[in-house]
Amino acid sequence: MDGYLAWLNYADQTPETWTLCQEPPVEDACLKNAKAELQRAWGPESPGAVQGWQLSLQLDGQLNREAYQIQRRDRNLSLSGGSTVGLLYACFALIRCLRLGQLTPDQTISQSPATSLRMINHWDNLDGSIERGYAGQSFFFRDNQLLLTERTQDYCRLAASIGINAIVINNVNVGGEASWLISSRHYPSLAELSRLMWGYGIRLFLSIDFAAPIVLGGLESADPLDPEVIAWWGRKVNEVYAALPQLGGFLVKADSEGRPGPFTYGRDQSQGANMLGRALAPHQGLLIWRAFVYNARQDWRDHKTDRARAAYDYFAPLDGHFADNVYLQIKNGPMDFQVREPVSPLFSRLRQTHLILELQIAQEYTGQQIDVCYLGSEWREILDFHTANPAALPGKDRVSDLITQSAWPGLKAGIAAVANTGSDRNWFGHDLAGLNYYAYGILAWNPAGDVVSIAADWLRQSLPSLSESATKALLSILTSSWRTYESYTAPLGIGWMVSPQTHYGPAIDGYEYDRWGTYHRADHWGLGVERGPQGTGYSELYPETLAARYRTVTSCPDELSLFFHYRRYTDRLHSGKTVIQHIYDSHFDGAAAAETYLETWRSLQSELDPELYERVEHRLEQQVANAREWRDQINSYFWRKSAIADEKKRVIY
Amino acid sequence: MDGYLAWLNYADQTPETWTLCQEPPVEDACLKNAKAELQRAWGPESPGAVQGWQLSLQLDGQLNREAYQIQRRDRNLSLSGGSTVGLLYACFALIRCLRLGQLTPDQTISQSPATSLRMINHWDNLDGSIERGYAGQSFFFRDNQLLLTERTQDYCRLAASIGINAIVINNVNVGGEASWLISSRHYPSLAELSRLMWGYGIRLFLSIDFAAPIVLGGLESADPLDPEVIAWWGRKVNEVYAALPQLGGFLVKADSEGRPGPFTYGRDQSQGANMLGRALAPHQGLLIWRAFVYNARQDWRDHKTDRARAAYDYFAPLDGHFADNVYLQIKNGPMDFQVREPVSPLFSRLRQTHLILELQIAQEYTGQQIDVCYLGSEWREILDFHTANPAALPGKDRVSDLITQSAWPGLKAGIAAVANTGSDRNWFGHDLAGLNYYAYGILAWNPAGDVVSIAADWLRQSLPSLSESATKALLSILTSSWRTYESYTAPLGIGWMVSPQTHYGPAIDGYEYDRWGTYHRADHWGLGVERGPQGTGYSELYPETLAARYRTVTSCPDELSLFFHYRRYTDRLHSGKTVIQHIYDSHFDGAAAAETYLETWRSLQSELDPELYERVEHRLEQQVANAREWRDQINSYFWRKSAIADEKKRVIY
Repeated sequence: MDGYLAWLNYADQTPETWTLCQEPPVEDACLKNAKAELQRAWGPESPGAVQGWQLSLQLDGQLNREAYQIQRRDRNLSLSGGSTVGLLYACFALIRCLRLGQLTPDQTISQSPATSLRMINHWDNLDGSIERGYAGQSFFFRDNQLLLTERTQDYCRLAASIGINAIVINNVNVGGEASWLISSRHYPSLAELSRLMWGYGIRLFLSIDFAAPIVLGGLESADPLDPEVIAWWGRKVNEVYAALPQLGGFLVKADSEGRPGPFTYGRDQSQGANMLGRALAPHQGLLIWRAFVYNARQDWRDHKTDRARAAYDYFAPLDGHFADNVYLQIKNGPMDFQVREPVSPLFSRLRQTHLILELQIAQEYTGQQIDVCYLGSEWREILDFHTANPAALPGKDRVSDLITQSAWPGLKAGIAAVANTGSDRNWFGHDLAGLNYYAYGILAWNPAGDVVSIAADWLRQSLPSLSESATKALLSILTSSWRTYESYTAPLGIGWMVSPQTHYGPAIDGYEYDRWGTYHRADHWGLGVERGPQGTGYSELYPETLAARYRTVTSCPDELSLFFHYRRYTDRLHSGKTVIQHIYDSHFDGAAAAETYLETWRSLQSELDPELYERVEHRLEQQVANAREWRDQINSYFWRKSAIADEKKRVIY
Repeated sequence: MDGYLAWLNYADQTPETWTLCQEPPVEDACLKNAKAELQRAWGPESPGAVQGWQLSLQLDGQLNREAYQIQRRDRNLSLSGGSTVGLLYACFALIRCLRLGQLTPDQTISQSPATSLRMINHWDNLDGSIERGYAGQSFFFRDNQLLLTERTQDYCRLAASIGINAIVINNVNVGGEASWLISSRHYPSLAELSRLMWGYGIRLFLSIDFAAPIVLGGLESADPLDPEVIAWWGRKVNEVYAALPQLGGFLVKADSEGRPGPFTYGRDQSQGANMLGRALAPHQGLLIWRAFVYNARQDWRDHKTDRARAAYDYFAPLDGHFADNVYLQIKNGPMDFQVREPVSPLFSRLRQTHLILELQIAQEYTGQQIDVCYLGSEWREILDFHTANPAALPGKDRVSDLITQSAWPGLKAGIAAVANTGSDRNWFGHDLAGLNYYAYGILAWNPAGDVVSIAADWLRQSLPSLSESATKALLSILTSSWRTYESYTAPLGIGWMVSPQTHYGPAIDGYEYDRWGTYHRADHWGLGVERGPQGTGYSELYPETLAARYRTVTSCPDELSLFFHYRRYTDRLHSGKTVIQHIYDSHFDGAAAAETYLETWRSLQSELDPELYERVEHRLEQQVANAREWRDQINSYFWRKSAIADEKKRVIY
């Protein structure tokens, strides 16, 4: 089993007799793709057959564009969609529900996405590499050209099957040939891609280079207030939309990690974003502006500057300054996709800014698709987090309320995530990493989804021949994997103890004396970054209910204890353990858990396809080695520094 | 001043009237090059002029091939050489001595190189990059082709002017196109290069791929005992020498850091080397085999394996097993060109092996031609080191006695060093780094040379217009620079606290949990690697007089204290300071010294060419920043770990 089919693995489906009794009288790519999917699952239609599924598809003007309804009356299936996209979603859902036994003979399912913008960000470069890609090369680009192959369409199927409706195909770090995506060099192939995507309900977005007026236009400036620059962007966007009428808009990383931006010209972030937003507005294009702006040249000796504050300090004062088609895309945490971070305080403060929650499916800091790490568990906590945003309606202050636009009237919002896909035959490198992509889509559609059920559904679709007990065993690996990964890596929310650049494997001091604002401040007595009022003051960026929780060690939850506070090794956590004993215990436990994953997998060998078995076994062996390395380096480092022995006298080097 | 002329900067020379009264009746490239050098220094000859220098050149069969004699009687100069190479050396020496005022009106200078093999190793790759190159790209290779330009000849002049007589042009890590240097693809250009070099008394050597029988020959093995392999090498070497009759031989890095070698076939190092040696013997070719063999996949948890032992453990038992045209090339220390290491114990033990001392002019671990670091100071200590080799004649046991073949009868030996050159206009990146190349050549010729005088001579030749006081100021920078570099980097001989891979700048734990056998073992109580009898036993590899010195902390010299022993921070050194206070003091002092270098340089601005001034100033600014980073990271690291405060209460972060 090569994994190419992912969760659209219909191998277990016996051909069905089915008849299409009714369909909308339109020529439409979405409708065509919807019917094609039914054929993939069930085999060719048997027109006029009186046995089997009697299917009728219709449009329903009462439904939202992406909404659908499935009515089953025994073998009669009536599918309605707010548009043909809704019907496409209905067909994917029908296949899924039938496979999972989730559509009883007399049942009606009504679905409408809770989130209007459900986006994937690819960090693919035009040379075919992928920034933080762990599943091979890009399938969008090679040799500075856009690729359009069967795989492109199959990727659209995967994305549409879980409701993704917007895809940025190129890396947010735009340079070289990527700057020229918005030029005639690439319009013909992009137009073809955008039409293909459109047939799956997906809007194409492009990451652009803020310095494009200089690079492409030959202007001397990219100053967002310069009339020439404004005029250039106006003309450029008109040209782009003439070529790509289905384009969703642009994504911009500006003034971050060496990218150009409005700061170069003494302008603020909203001035940069709004200039582009205004150019896009006539075409109903969106401008998505990343909030990931910070000083990447910090001095480690400086204990006052705090990278965790950066996005807040730059953007909170600009609340209300952004144009109506501008969205601020905010990473879930204030740092950068560590295995554990608090939720960004911007979600607690912004009330007049359209916002997008940015997650990372790519396992940059969470095991790089070598270690199994089901991120749904993390996302569940993020989505359930009460932001205490004072603008929110009573009880509607969770992150999930924000991204579903239910927190307050007039809010526009969405969700985005960095893809974990690549040219590897199985799309994700690690077969079990496919779950993260799948779960992201399901949660984007319905942020209230239960992540254990999502994992179970994914398993049954992806590995349909597995026995119930094997499915259960794998489910137990998946649902414990994020906490396991957390337990054998950097402790108690401190983060960043990873190998610089690669971000895989431990290097406890790897970022400690560096310029990235990423420190643990460990010394002989303790460790942690003091972010309370006596420290960097980061805790005070939150509304009082949250600030009160984070401000003191007595109220701060254990899992974020070292993120918010410098703690002595001998301090007791809420768990009753000392900090140092927690470090030792969690690392011994986490590495042991990784070993049980490998044992479990091996115990299932007889049930598994040999190729799949070997692919995953090889990765689990690497995970066991990685967890051991983390365990021993972390434990040795803190033993050598603290001189406090493990209570349980286990081997520390 | 662009630095291109280096120490052959004759800009200060006023044209001289000179006449060649006599020369040997031979057509010879060395003689031609010798006369051309006189013209460069003095301007065109004035044949028959009765004023000015009256010069006679002759061959003297009594002299060794490379030896020469210069007799000055007022304006009459009589130069004799054992061959035209000797005459070439005589001409370079004549120009130098006259410029430096070191040839009085009635003086005779007789010179013969103390070392017969004076070699440079270039680590140049065929794609034009240089491994550990800090002065631009290769001037030997570009785009997989050999380059032959005016620069090639000027490089030969630089090398010959200080007596280099052997040059390996390609990296010891041989792969890709470099494997094909010994094939018809490259013979024509290599032949031209070897002829050019030969005209400067230099033999061309090539680094070769031990797996060449597989890669080039299509054999299935490179087993040195396989008759097919032996036959293949025999044919190959015959072919090479037919094309390159002046070739000096081959250099091989085998079984090291991923290179193939005899271990692959269960053979020992001498079997690999001798097989190649036998193929070369009919052509009087030399086979130079590097002793840099170690397990590069050590587990940091393993305290018993000691990389410092590796070369000894592999090669000491093979003493007497090597063929007569095989030389073992041994790095000065047992690790890898750290700023301070003990001398390799192989020099104390081998008695029946021809050997080459390998130094590194390229400043890989010593500042990368950003920081000024005059390595002559280090080499002086290495050359003066008494090896206590039991085979040595009384009082003839210094490293310098070994490489000059005076330690015992029948010994063959030489010296080699990794070049610090590149395509930068000034050859060395840092103008002051040219001294290291120069001093290497002078010391290779005469290992008893005084390194302060060498530096002074170099300064006067390279910057002839400098005032006496400025020369003195620069000399003071140069002669203190190695100890300064040592003082602000890794303390007391421990080494390796550098950024992995790049090897520039501090990363105290950068190699601590890695696979390279490079650990400092610092904990709350102390640091250092215990290499005494209770530790890895490395100290016992030396003869008893040295073993006794290194075995105990009471006799071990301070500068190697942590190389040989784990010491408590509170232990007293011979200097009277505690280990921790030594760390603090040396780092504050070293960084302060770097600052004075910059101040001194700035104070000389009015005397210096503006381009040269800026090039060096820019590097000194980087050095100051680097020294500050080392100081603060080292001090913070050990303060945080030891919890022992600086007695002088200076700022530690």
